[in-house]
Amino acid sequence: MESLNLEYILARLRSALERDDIAGATAILEALRPADQADLFSELDDHEQVVLLPELAIADSANILEKMEEREAADLVALLLPEVVVPIVEKMEPDEAADLLGDLAPEQAEAVLAGLDDPEEVRPLLLHSDDSAGGLMTSEVLALRRKMTAGEALQAIRLWQPEAEEIYYLFVVDREGVLDGVVSLRQLVVARPDDRLETIMDQEVISVLAGTDKEECARLMSRYDLLALPVVGDTGKLLGMVTVDDMVDVLVDEATEDIQRLGGAQPLDRPYLDMGTLSIFRKRVGWLLLLFVTESLTGSVLRHFEAELHAVVALAFFVPLLIGTGGNAGTQTTSTLIRSLAVGEVAPRDALHALWHELRVGLLLGLAMSIIAYARALSWGSGHELALTVSLAILAIVVWANGLGALLPILATRFKIDPAVVSGPVMSTLVDATGLFIYFTIARLVLGL
Amino acid sequence: MESLNLEYILARLRSALERDDIAGATAILEALRPADQADLFSELDDHEQVVLLPELAIADSANILEKMEEREAADLVALLLPEVVVPIVEKMEPDEAADLLGDLAPEQAEAVLAGLDDPEEVRPLLLHSDDSAGGLMTSEVLALRRKMTAGEALQAIRLWQPEAEEIYYLFVVDREGVLDGVVSLRQLVVARPDDRLETIMDQEVISVLAGTDKEECARLMSRYDLLALPVVGDTGKLLGMVTVDDMVDVLVDEATEDIQRLGGAQPLDRPYLDMGTLSIFRKRVGWLLLLFVTESLTGSVLRHFEAELHAVVALAFFVPLLIGTGGNAGTQTTSTLIRSLAVGEVAPRDALHALWHELRVGLLLGLAMSIIAYARALSWGSGHELALTVSLAILAIVVWANGLGALLPILATRFKIDPAVVSGPVMSTLVDATGLFIYFTIARLVLGL
Repeated sequence: MESLNLEYILARLRSALERDDIAGATAILEALRPADQADLFSELDDHEQVVLLPELAIADSANILEKMEEREAADLVALLLPEVVVPIVEKMEPDEAADLLGDLAPEQAEAVLAGLDDPEEVRPLLLHSDDSAGGLMTSEVLALRRKMTAGEALQAIRLWQPEAEEIYYLFVVDREGVLDGVVSLRQLVVARPDDRLETIMDQEVISVLAGTDKEECARLMSRYDLLALPVVGDTGKLLGMVTVDDMVDVLVDEATEDIQRLGGAQPLDRPYLDMGTLSIFRKRVGWLLLLFVTESLTGSVLRHFEAELHAVVALAFFVPLLIGTGGNAGTQTTSTLIRSLAVGEVAPRDALHALWHELRVGLLLGLAMSIIAYARALSWGSGHELALTVSLAILAIVVWANGLGALLPILATRFKIDPAVVSGPVMSTLVDATGLFIYFTIARLVLGL
Repeated sequence: MESLNLEYILARLRSALERDDIAGATAILEALRPADQADLFSELDDHEQVVLLPELAIADSANILEKMEEREAADLVALLLPEVVVPIVEKMEPDEAADLLGDLAPEQAEAVLAGLDDPEEVRPLLLHSDDSAGGLMTSEVLALRRKMTAGEALQAIRLWQPEAEEIYYLFVVDREGVLDGVVSLRQLVVARPDDRLETIMDQEVISVLAGTDKEECARLMSRYDLLALPVVGDTGKLLGMVTVDDMVDVLVDEATEDIQRLGGAQPLDRPYLDMGTLSIFRKRVGWLLLLFVTESLTGSVLRHFEAELHAVVALAFFVPLLIGTGGNAGTQTTSTLIRSLAVGEVAPRDALHALWHELRVGLLLGLAMSIIAYARALSWGSGHELALTVSLAILAIVVWANGLGALLPILATRFKIDPAVVSGPVMSTLVDATGLFIYFTIARLVLGL
């Protein structure tokens, strides 16, 4: 088990910087792995970062910029001169370089691009949205021809001397560069040296278009256990590949965003502790206000039933209990549905199936709750009629909440809205006002108010 | 973009089975990729599965059992005879075989083990918990010696002819089998054939003990972009490795479980639509009841303030609004914290930092909400004093909810409880009763009740 004491190393790094011991500071950083370098470097303030980055080995600087949060990296680079930035970007993976340039001011990005040896390796990647396969892919792929032998292919790899570990799939293309097949490094190694690629390659390649959504790419790779996914243009021409490390990042980020949305807030774009109070405020206040306005419908419902409340003040005692339980049942359902939609277990066409599923679950849960609620109401000294009202209301509210919790995320998906917007808070809020209406309607009928 | 019409293929498969056309049915399945085979196969009922599995090529059956949900696979295997199961398990990856055997009845598992050619490849894996590196690892690793040359190592791989794609890292061990270094297939290919492994291998190997939690393994692999993670015993002896495809499954499952817990339910152990009404009911009813009991505290608080409610019935109008908003603010906070803890952005030692962060965010949110609430109360015809009460109460409740939402998940982690148990529903429920207490206390003071 590796467990670096990053705080201790950070203290040493800081003290070296305070003594202006740049050589000492770079030595501390360069002894670490890239992910740890980036973590430590992110802890430094802007001034320390600007001083230190140009002093590091170019490869380390490139690694650090690749591993830092994208926004942080862009903020740092915006403070550096092009002559410092260009050699670092040159050393970055093309897909990471393009992501960085995309986050810079256009003039600065242009200045850096102009300084690169081969801007055409990066420029086409800038055209694609960050959310698409084209924005995620690297253009550093080795394309081979079908008549080559395994031995020749291995020789080509030796000559190419790729830096990245991600050359576990090699792609075979035709004369026009159209993707023809895929062969893994393992297959090349175990093949006889004079086997032709066309005899060992897999011709049924799973590939995506440059515009394919990145989450769809991640799902394909995870489903079929792919280490790399080729990206092609409209004519089938090989443009690049998405690698497994990017896929993992996409899956993890997607889950993070879903969890934050499910909590009723916009996803954060930086690590939590690095975000300022105001930034977090802005991510949350919109939903909170919108829900407040919706929630104030509950007041209108209560005022509508003011006469009933005056007649039986005890009705008020059960209000939080009933709407709270309805909100909880709805949240249980919506979170299950949102995740099932995200991992592909449920598709929009399953709407009726899911609704039927949840109505039955809601009926069982509602019956269980209604028995407990009846007993609870009696134990508070309510009469049988009030207890019956509460008991019927909780049954109806739970079934209603489960149905809503099943349908709304699926409807959102159908209208191309992220189902995670039907968050726990949204469900609670929707069930609050409607649940009260159900409760007082039942009270009117049962208590004859 | 690949997009198979699995429903159409399923209909063809079913109709072949109805016609007793086993050859046709196997041909349909065998034309698909393993993940699709497993999906389709899972859609069949028990009887169809039992008939079809023994007819498929052994390698396809093994793939299908590996890719099916673990519980479903075990249920199916329990219906088959050992002479059918043994050759299939023989063909499975050792880690997957061990998972399957672990889910069978002990006698059946023993019968299958006894039939295997090399039970010792699987038996040791059964000793480890499914949640640990030992339970996740495969024992199929190629261990090399440091004095070997790159050419000899490549020759050893050719002789070994591994079936799996996951041989991208080779491990170097000493005479006692203690892990010494790691070398990637890429490094072997680009090295000169007579380079010794000791000169090209990486000696600072990241490894884990067999008992390491699987989520910790997944985080290490994702952080350091590893395609495989070696697992060692207490003496440093190489036991096996965890591969990237297992890591992806762990990360995805972890996010799924967190989302379901965050929704206030126990995680489901099968795909949602395959679960029966009763099973889903059981996963939810515990939390729902527990929350109901806690929520009924709100009734006690309301009864405690019955005199105030009688005096100013209008106080009741704001109850759902205030506690709803508090629950929403708390849910926003707890979901952010739970995810930050899961991805390692926040550690238990950051408790005070996070609390301070959230109190400030809560103050800003509370101020914004209190202005709106004041206006809303006036617009409902409340007097200035009642509006002031509502306005102060929402400020206090939001700050309180944010503080609680920050602290509780961190405290849970410190006590080794999954922080995701501090779900949205739990937060809403906790804030409901305490929020009412805050509200009526402020009402007493401001309105002089």
